[in-house]
Amino acid sequence: MHPQNMNINIEELVNLDFSISRVGVPTLDSPLKDVIFVGDSESITYCADRNINNELYASGKNVPAFVAAGPRKKLYHDATWTRAAIVTCGGLCPGLNDVIKALVNTLYYTYKVDNIFGIQYGYSGLNPSNGLKPIVLNPDIVDGIHTTGGSILGSSRGHQDTEEIVRTLDRLNINILFTIGGDGTQRGAHDIAVELKKRNLPVSVIGIPKTIDNDLCFMDKTFGFETAVQVAAPIISCAHNEAKGYLNGVGLIKLMGRDSGFIAAYASLANSLVNFCLIPEVQFELYGENGLLPALERRLARKQHAVIVVAEGAGQNLFQDDGEVTVDKSGNKLHKDIGILLKDEISLYMKSRNIDFSMKYIDPSYILRSTPANGMDSIFCLHLAQHAVHAAMAGMTDVVVANWQGNFTYVPTSLATRSRRKIDPRGQLWQSVLLSTRQNTDWPSKAAE
Amino acid sequence: MHPQNMNINIEELVNLDFSISRVGVPTLDSPLKDVIFVGDSESITYCADRNINNELYASGKNVPAFVAAGPRKKLYHDATWTRAAIVTCGGLCPGLNDVIKALVNTLYYTYKVDNIFGIQYGYSGLNPSNGLKPIVLNPDIVDGIHTTGGSILGSSRGHQDTEEIVRTLDRLNINILFTIGGDGTQRGAHDIAVELKKRNLPVSVIGIPKTIDNDLCFMDKTFGFETAVQVAAPIISCAHNEAKGYLNGVGLIKLMGRDSGFIAAYASLANSLVNFCLIPEVQFELYGENGLLPALERRLARKQHAVIVVAEGAGQNLFQDDGEVTVDKSGNKLHKDIGILLKDEISLYMKSRNIDFSMKYIDPSYILRSTPANGMDSIFCLHLAQHAVHAAMAGMTDVVVANWQGNFTYVPTSLATRSRRKIDPRGQLWQSVLLSTRQNTDWPSKAAE
Amino acid sequence: MHPQNMNINIEELVNLDFSISRVGVPTLDSPLKDVIFVGDSESITYCADRNINNELYASGKNVPAFVAAGPRKKLYHDATWTRAAIVTCGGLCPGLNDVIKALVNTLYYTYKVDNIFGIQYGYSGLNPSNGLKPIVLNPDIVDGIHTTGGSILGSSRGHQDTEEIVRTLDRLNINILFTIGGDGTQRGAHDIAVELKKRNLPVSVIGIPKTIDNDLCFMDKTFGFETAVQVAAPIISCAHNEAKGYLNGVGLIKLMGRDSGFIAAYASLANSLVNFCLIPEVQFELYGENGLLPALERRLARKQHAVIVVAEGAGQNLFQDDGEVTVDKSGNKLHKDIGILLKDEISLYMKSRNIDFSMKYIDPSYILRSTPANGMDSIFCLHLAQHAVHAAMAGMTDVVVANWQGNFTYVPTSLATRSRRKIDPRGQLWQSVLLSTRQNTDWPSKAAE
Amino acid sequence: MHPQNMNINIEELVNLDFSISRVGVPTLDSPLKDVIFVGDSESITYCADRNINNELYASGKNVPAFVAAGPRKKLYHDATWTRAAIVTCGGLCPGLNDVIKALVNTLYYTYKVDNIFGIQYGYSGLNPSNGLKPIVLNPDIVDGIHTTGGSILGSSRGHQDTEEIVRTLDRLNINILFTIGGDGTQRGAHDIAVELKKRNLPVSVIGIPKTIDNDLCFMDKTFGFETAVQVAAPIISCAHNEAKGYLNGVGLIKLMGRDSGFIAAYASLANSLVNFCLIPEVQFELYGENGLLPALERRLARKQHAVIVVAEGAGQNLFQDDGEVTVDKSGNKLHKDIGILLKDEISLYMKSRNIDFSMKYIDPSYILRSTPANGMDSIFCLHLAQHAVHAAMAGMTDVVVANWQGNFTYVPTSLATRSRRKIDPRGQLWQSVLLSTRQNTDWPSKAAE
Repeated sequence: MHPQNMNINIEELVNLDFSISRVGVPTLDSPLKDVIFVGDSESITYCADRNINNELYASGKNVPAFVAAGPRKKLYHDATWTRAAIVTCGGLCPGLNDVIKALVNTLYYTYKVDNIFGIQYGYSGLNPSNGLKPIVLNPDIVDGIHTTGGSILGSSRGHQDTEEIVRTLDRLNINILFTIGGDGTQRGAHDIAVELKKRNLPVSVIGIPKTIDNDLCFMDKTFGFETAVQVAAPIISCAHNEAKGYLNGVGLIKLMGRDSGFIAAYASLANSLVNFCLIPEVQFELYGENGLLPALERRLARKQHAVIVVAEGAGQNLFQDDGEVTVDKSGNKLHKDIGILLKDEISLYMKSRNIDFSMKYIDPSYILRSTPANGMDSIFCLHLAQHAVHAAMAGMTDVVVANWQGNFTYVPTSLATRSRRKIDPRGQLWQSVLLSTRQNTDWPSKAAE
Repeated sequence: MHPQNMNINIEELVNLDFSISRVGVPTLDSPLKDVIFVGDSESITYCADRNINNELYASGKNVPAFVAAGPRKKLYHDATWTRAAIVTCGGLCPGLNDVIKALVNTLYYTYKVDNIFGIQYGYSGLNPSNGLKPIVLNPDIVDGIHTTGGSILGSSRGHQDTEEIVRTLDRLNINILFTIGGDGTQRGAHDIAVELKKRNLPVSVIGIPKTIDNDLCFMDKTFGFETAVQVAAPIISCAHNEAKGYLNGVGLIKLMGRDSGFIAAYASLANSLVNFCLIPEVQFELYGENGLLPALERRLARKQHAVIVVAEGAGQNLFQDDGEVTVDKSGNKLHKDIGILLKDEISLYMKSRNIDFSMKYIDPSYILRSTPANGMDSIFCLHLAQHAVHAAMAGMTDVVVANWQGNFTYVPTSLATRSRRKIDPRGQLWQSVLLSTRQNTDWPSKAAE
Repeated sequence: MHPQNMNINIEELVNLDFSISRVGVPTLDSPLKDVIFVGDSESITYCADRNINNELYASGKNVPAFVAAGPRKKLYHDATWTRAAIVTCGGLCPGLNDVIKALVNTLYYTYKVDNIFGIQYGYSGLNPSNGLKPIVLNPDIVDGIHTTGGSILGSSRGHQDTEEIVRTLDRLNINILFTIGGDGTQRGAHDIAVELKKRNLPVSVIGIPKTIDNDLCFMDKTFGFETAVQVAAPIISCAHNEAKGYLNGVGLIKLMGRDSGFIAAYASLANSLVNFCLIPEVQFELYGENGLLPALERRLARKQHAVIVVAEGAGQNLFQDDGEVTVDKSGNKLHKDIGILLKDEISLYMKSRNIDFSMKYIDPSYILRSTPANGMDSIFCLHLAQHAVHAAMAGMTDVVVANWQGNFTYVPTSLATRSRRKIDPRGQLWQSVLLSTRQNTDWPSKAAE
Repeated sequence: MHPQNMNINIEELVNLDFSISRVGVPTLDSPLKDVIFVGDSESITYCADRNINNELYASGKNVPAFVAAGPRKKLYHDATWTRAAIVTCGGLCPGLNDVIKALVNTLYYTYKVDNIFGIQYGYSGLNPSNGLKPIVLNPDIVDGIHTTGGSILGSSRGHQDTEEIVRTLDRLNINILFTIGGDGTQRGAHDIAVELKKRNLPVSVIGIPKTIDNDLCFMDKTFGFETAVQVAAPIISCAHNEAKGYLNGVGLIKLMGRDSGFIAAYASLANSLVNFCLIPEVQFELYGENGLLPALERRLARKQHAVIVVAEGAGQNLFQDDGEVTVDKSGNKLHKDIGILLKDEISLYMKSRNIDFSMKYIDPSYILRSTPANGMDSIFCLHLAQHAVHAAMAGMTDVVVANWQGNFTYVPTSLATRSRRKIDPRGQLWQSVLLSTRQNTDWPSKAAE
């Protein structure tokens, strides 16, 4: 019923352990006043359906639920002695600076922590061989940063030696490390937490998931996603103007989405000018009865223009397997460029059919990811950061802050990174996309993927 | 734990009946294919906390839950004979045209209903004495309307005779009526549904709640709210520029929020330039030890400028009770104008203290409510409309479409309008506002409201 | 032919002296390289018409022309010893920070002046009794300020004692004073220049005209104007949505324009949704045959909605003369509020005619003036500031930088402030407005003002 | 002194004939009232400098001047019998729909012409073999089109047979043809006018120059340019965020500008984040002492990030001449892709120097050109269209509407298309760019091109 998560089996969930690790027993009183504290047993049920939960309970099984996020009555870290560090890794994403600002403000004003450091250029800033010094952070420094995209700390991709990082944290006397990044980053954070534990170092490692593709597990949305969708809308309108501006004009926009087509799907919904939305979760062919190209030809014959949105990870089946797999510095499998392939194939096909056409290809990825967060996204970043600080001060570790059905949660890092969330082609989201694009008008076989 | 709804007692909820009325037994097969149908027993649990639900279940009590929204396998209304009407009532709100467009498209393309009418200027368009004719709607007509704010159907405030409306529906052979409006509108819709039932007329009355104040019961958010918050942000920046531009500059912005301060609170969070956020839920005084004016004076002495956001319903205690209560055409109690009062009182106070100051007052209400919906809000409108049509075709009635913790639900109209949602001053939202504005720096007594 | 300046008589111009005063003879070599220097005899012809100029020349008369702006080969001020000050006065205007930034950068990088001061809160910062200290400015400090509206220096209205200001400049060893402000400010700057000359103090006083109303003499446009017009457009759309959203809806927007209706006129042209544009230059009546109210009634009868844009200085004849004239701190005559008057009068009239209507009044003035400058405006600010610095370093004084028919000029301050530029009702601009609004459709007598 | 036009020699201008052709003697009275008519002898002086003009006049030479645009007292075409056609050709440009709308409204409301046709897809719509029918246009149809980018008529590139076009115009009884397009389009329009004259067909051919590169002769600016500059600004900010987001990050943006770097130059001025601006008018090398790549390396060593804006026509000397010259359908020489070349060369260079870097390449061309016009651009389109209609009704032909130093002019089509306007590297514009980017800090030899 919660359509975006159909691919996780409830039976499997019953056996997962959602409890959170700690670096030690929290014994200090929280300085927060007039606040409703959250007890450690408070939980956010995984499944919204009452019947399923009641049945599980009745049969003595565990009802899957996340630990509820929020301020704890008892803290582990003593603000006076606490030294917190913040690191941003991987690709840019709207809201990075909002998260940094809110972490600093919450540490400083709410918990009175005044030793806060920004690690430069991702994990590489924790490897002393790179010669990058931590930056001192305080509310004055971060005051206006949320109006700018990007990350004031800088970012980087790629693996750094875990032991080296841990040695650096130890040498810098860091008690809390906030890791803002995607699944690669959080897997790295998990390794750091494990290594810290091995050495008995009571350092809280708290992850704030950042994935503009919105594809992390056990969370409904991640920051930056809504902004990216919003920024895509006028660009799709431009592609539509270009398409309508010429006889048989085709506007082709490549959007982010390595393994999941969330941005492509939402952007298509937000902008009803899209005629074909192509995502990794739904395979398609170019030629033949069910091919995209003949469908495009039919569309052009009917309407003289077409707008196509393609997620970067779509149509990987269309590339000849040359045995090579390329990965980026973060270890992400590098996809063949479906945008260029489609652009070329459409041009060849139209020429072969002697159709006078006009092809316009737009790749706005960097524009979407380096823009500042919009209003609601900015608030979402604020809340994520507040909950991250609550978790940190209470001594939790190896945990990411997440959002489940409107509630903030804490999820063990290893669970959050175990797989990637995908669109269910039979679920509500994709059905809405099909209704909105009506791509099956010209591509009737599309439904049967 | 779900901070925005603390004011509803769980014990009371156990006894509420969330089941949905129908105009008849659905017996026709849905034309939808490759879709996951939602069963009538599927539900969305009210309370996210596992323990509370388990306890209720264990003690044999009802676990409160809403009926899950979504397409039903069996329909009541036959598309061929169905005549649907759409009416928009009350104040403008971003997304009205998105909802209208999505209703028309879903009726037309998904269910093949092609008799769709738009009622002009709210309920007054259903009173024949006003001489307003229904407009024929179809996908071509609504194609581009989502790029414009307002409502293509027009709206109106005020009560119309229920029996007259029912006679009109009967005469026009309307089987489905979609009512887009706030609590006044939905109470009217409930009356219509009751009257229809009395006359044994199988007309489905489906409400889509519209309240830019975001204050309806049993739903997390309503359409238009997020857009309003986003539009407020640059205007608050303008007020900040005006405030900083002059010695002891005060920028005062009045935002919507009759009984609940959600827009004021979210806008303050989205724009960290706000120094005082005043909402109806938190009473305050102007003068004396705990007064706003001395606090403002302290702030100006410290920083030489201040930005104040005030919800229109805040500070009603500051008006002398002259025994009169004024209501608008919809029966909403008309508030005294707190914006003007504050503007005047601040000026008087500063003059009396011989402080050189500059007061700038901005009331952007009409700008916020008549703007087009942004990307995510637009998608939200689409989903609300789709679920409204699913409910209608399945023969439900006297129901509104709502959203609970990320899931779409159907809520009996009488329950949705029974009271207004408010901000809990001890909950997370307000705590975030206090953290962000740090208004208690200069106004220490504020916390103890 | 140059329609906006028809109100200046060419015969009168022949006798005006457009030459620029200097504080001394420029003898130092300019450090600029690879640049085309501008000679002092280079001029920008006032009148674009060849025949008029030829005739004047043939008859031995002076052909009116401005001194051309641009870098001079010889400088008066020695960069090493130069101390420059910048002051912003009067109301906010988009681009203030752009001008400040470009002044600082041009002084610093182009001419190597590194003693630059910002005067706080307008001329009041030059009166030591106010206790305001100058701020040190350099390229780092001003680096990002252009992304924010307002003025980082702050502004103020009101007269300060000229001798006091001159004493302060002398005590601070200021050689160059840049005054950014409207006609009041520049009249003050002229007084300062006169007083400095009287005391034989070689201080260059260079004005950069700031008037969002775009009403200064001998210049085609001033910075901030184009941004204000652009920002008004979506707000007018909102008013249109409100107007169309209700039966007989009237959207009324008050825009700036004390004596000249340029913003109202341009905003009406930029947004073709305006039905009535009211400006100070064209008198009108409310009632009777030629009255606005009956015209509005006709419009509503025909179209059921109307959008009215009114400049703040329009319709002053409609107020009963109570003998009082009120002025603001800057000595500007305070207008009675035509926005409120129209709102009230329209409501009364419609009620008296038993017309069901909906009145929405928007006053976005502070939003227009405190917004950051848009792209082209920002470039315009940059060029104004560069030319201001060129003039200053060459030892000019008592001069403002202006723009005439696409060329930058230097105009004696006393000439620039001698009167206010107005719209010619028979000229091209107003004719375009009439074409665009077609307000004479319902208001036929309008043309004959 | 007018720096952007230094490349036109005043001596040469003296001998040019700026007079306008007509299809016949205008004898009908204009229906315009209360308007200041423009006489045919009224002119707009080419050179703003008084001395130059006086000298020319004194020595008996012609003072170069354009015919002033504006409404004429006497018309040639009779509104009742007039059939006007509008065609848009070449690449999209912000404001196309504004021009179309204003042409239709001015013809219809001002001159009462009600037979107006839109030619589909450029000149190809005038070749009957393409089977494209003209669209009927009227004020209702064009009412809202200005809110959308692109052209409602569609466009096309490429030559069509002139005689075929003339036969079509004759067969359709067209008396006035408005051609909206760049220099290829206007050269085609000139050929059409010549052919019409040869056949004694009194058809007015009026051009409205459209070149987003802003590179047409004898005009200061063309519509769409300012919007393109404005739209580029946030995209450059994104590139800056990407550049700062990674160690040695390089943000590279390719902007339009085939032969002239106006967009690149203005966008660099409007957004002070650009460090290197590369235009066709200033040659550069990649390697060696004066090379861009070593300069970039120096910049990165100093600041760890860099933003480069490159016009598409820049650096053509860097491509090995392979003897081939490729042209597009319009006959424009197709440039090698300098964006891709730079991206590849920078990457190779940095790798060869073992520098850890991050390269982000953005090509936003289609976004800039297909966006709707902003406020001032929209007004500019309106005025251009009004003047085009004035010219047409007065029976002028073989003419384009232009803008010279703030005044509207009529320029013979053959003169407007004789060469392309370029940036003078010693002029004010480029000097401002150098000041703003300070690219000579790391690239000292740059100034000496």
